[in-house]
Amino acid sequence: MDRRPTIYDVAEAAGVSASTVSRAFARPGRVNAGTAARIFEVAKELGYRTSALPGLTTTHTRSLALVVTDITNPFYAEIIRGAHEAAGELGYTILLSHTQEDAQLERTWTERELSGVEGVLLTSSRMSDSAIRMLAKQKPVVVLNRALPEVPSLLVDNARGVRRALEHLGGLGHRSVLYVAGPETSWTDGTRWQALREAGCELEIKVRRVGPVGGPTLRAGHAVAEQVASHEASAVIAYNDVLAIGLMHGLRALGVRVPEDLSVVGFDNTLLAEIVSPQLTTVAAPLHALGTTGVRNLVGMIRGAVPSREPRVLPVRLVVRGSTAQRRRNSTSPARGTTKTSGSASAAATSIDAGSR
Amino acid sequence: MDRRPTIYDVAEAAGVSASTVSRAFARPGRVNAGTAARIFEVAKELGYRTSALPGLTTTHTRSLALVVTDITNPFYAEIIRGAHEAAGELGYTILLSHTQEDAQLERTWTERELSGVEGVLLTSSRMSDSAIRMLAKQKPVVVLNRALPEVPSLLVDNARGVRRALEHLGGLGHRSVLYVAGPETSWTDGTRWQALREAGCELEIKVRRVGPVGGPTLRAGHAVAEQVASHEASAVIAYNDVLAIGLMHGLRALGVRVPEDLSVVGFDNTLLAEIVSPQLTTVAAPLHALGTTGVRNLVGMIRGAVPSREPRVLPVRLVVRGSTAQRRRNSTSPARGTTKTSGSASAAATSIDAGSR
Repeated sequence: MDRRPTIYDVAEAAGVSASTVSRAFARPGRVNAGTAARIFEVAKELGYRTSALPGLTTTHTRSLALVVTDITNPFYAEIIRGAHEAAGELGYTILLSHTQEDAQLERTWTERELSGVEGVLLTSSRMSDSAIRMLAKQKPVVVLNRALPEVPSLLVDNARGVRRALEHLGGLGHRSVLYVAGPETSWTDGTRWQALREAGCELEIKVRRVGPVGGPTLRAGHAVAEQVASHEASAVIAYNDVLAIGLMHGLRALGVRVPEDLSVVGFDNTLLAEIVSPQLTTVAAPLHALGTTGVRNLVGMIRGAVPSREPRVLPVRLVVRGSTAQRRRNSTSPARGTTKTSGSASAAATSIDAGSR
Repeated sequence: MDRRPTIYDVAEAAGVSASTVSRAFARPGRVNAGTAARIFEVAKELGYRTSALPGLTTTHTRSLALVVTDITNPFYAEIIRGAHEAAGELGYTILLSHTQEDAQLERTWTERELSGVEGVLLTSSRMSDSAIRMLAKQKPVVVLNRALPEVPSLLVDNARGVRRALEHLGGLGHRSVLYVAGPETSWTDGTRWQALREAGCELEIKVRRVGPVGGPTLRAGHAVAEQVASHEASAVIAYNDVLAIGLMHGLRALGVRVPEDLSVVGFDNTLLAEIVSPQLTTVAAPLHALGTTGVRNLVGMIRGAVPSREPRVLPVRLVVRGSTAQRRRNSTSPARGTTKTSGSASAAATSIDAGSR
């Protein structure tokens, strides 16, 4: 081939139409990723160049902002993966922010990115309702894991998840359950605690709450272990897997055995739940689907769809593993008794009205 | 205040100069995040608006592309966190791609994003050298965890990490060590295996290699357990923490005890290493610093700095935890003997020349 290759040469060699080749270069998101890759490969082999060199820098990139509170929490990894996949299919790229559980930083970042994106996906936002509504007046916004008026949102069925967990513990003979709370600014945390109180009332299981303990980190879970160990409850439901696992480690250091002395349930069913020992019983949320559905709804809004006024709620299920077991007849084991003498049992747990959150 | 608030009102109320207020709105990245947040808060309280409403949508967003192979591997979480922090300080946003360990997808995504960013940070790229060089001709590129001619890169000291791990195992009496390999397209994997062979030769420890086992996932680690259990080696070094932990789970299912029957060493010192039981001995890489330094070097190039031709190498250290122990005199435990009868011992491990990778 001694003439300069044309778009038709590329199309023929790649087994696609010339218009597909054109689209692959101008709008890669509109072409199946595998097909686009094959076209680029063939184009390179043939030495094909679109008129402007290097072709692709003339492409208009359309982006969505994705805001997460803590990139090191594996909870977000699956959401990001889902969001990225859906964005790719729809021809969008993802501008990521990590806001370190800080509402102020979240706002600064989001505002900074606003001009460069067509829409914003907030996950577990720590911002105030009014800040989110202000944002939603400027660009299409979808909120994950939080319900607020006037802004489209996507939730997981926290109430059902909490209820399944409590039914499971009730079935194992537990009559007193402690909730280890998440961040004060977390909408999800308030929702779970309220659902737990309601379910406790119905199932005649006493529920109490410790925390909030700061950010939902391994360290925070570890730090609350002594308080948990000195409480009368024979089972714990934690705000998320990371807290639950930090707690399990703290309990082990105190000589409290899981699940023999204390049953522990997490939330999220992250990668972590499978690798700890005992493996963690946890409420599985459809994290990947949260990411894909969030992006699809957001792009729908960008393209003019009228979003539903009601939050869409995705289903959850309880995954039972080794961290929960039958309550022992004498709930105070020797190990826990020992701990009790050193702890401050009376001030250990407080019951806070979920309504005030 | 019955007149419309001016930039001077905001400056006075926030305790900064008017030029800082102006900069906060025009280029938030040039102002300390806390200061910017305070300015925005004050501006909102006063009802201040920049001329174009809503002020910030006129801001030009400058972005960097950050390409990771697997967002669900916690290895990347710390790198992303570091990159995001440094980008924020320098006034950039981060466009994230997740390429699922697929070189073709990595290329498609990167090319798609190219027009919207000022530079590209590739982490553990699976693309060919020539594809990366082509990219680097179009935009400033910094590569993490891979050395290649003509493109600035940032590495961790794999050779030293591998050597420390092998010295540690040698000190515990191990004379035969198995390496569980990572992805075939990983530059890091090739480097580690070669360093291991050299260190093995010097320290008179027999080193062999199994795999590659596919992507470095928990599942892949679990799947290789039988092959590892039937091998004569009394210790294992895995390509990364995720593989090591998957392997530990697989070994437990086979009745092989870690560290009593087999010592296991990982690589990366991710969050996961601390939460498994026994905790994982692992080579700690400065992941957060990889992210921050990578972004700083990249922005330096964008601003006209001439990058160093030599890769910069960041130091590593060995973190000794519970997954490694003294070799037992009789290296074949009853459990491992049982496994051996069902496994295909002879074909279990092959020694592959690292030079061919």
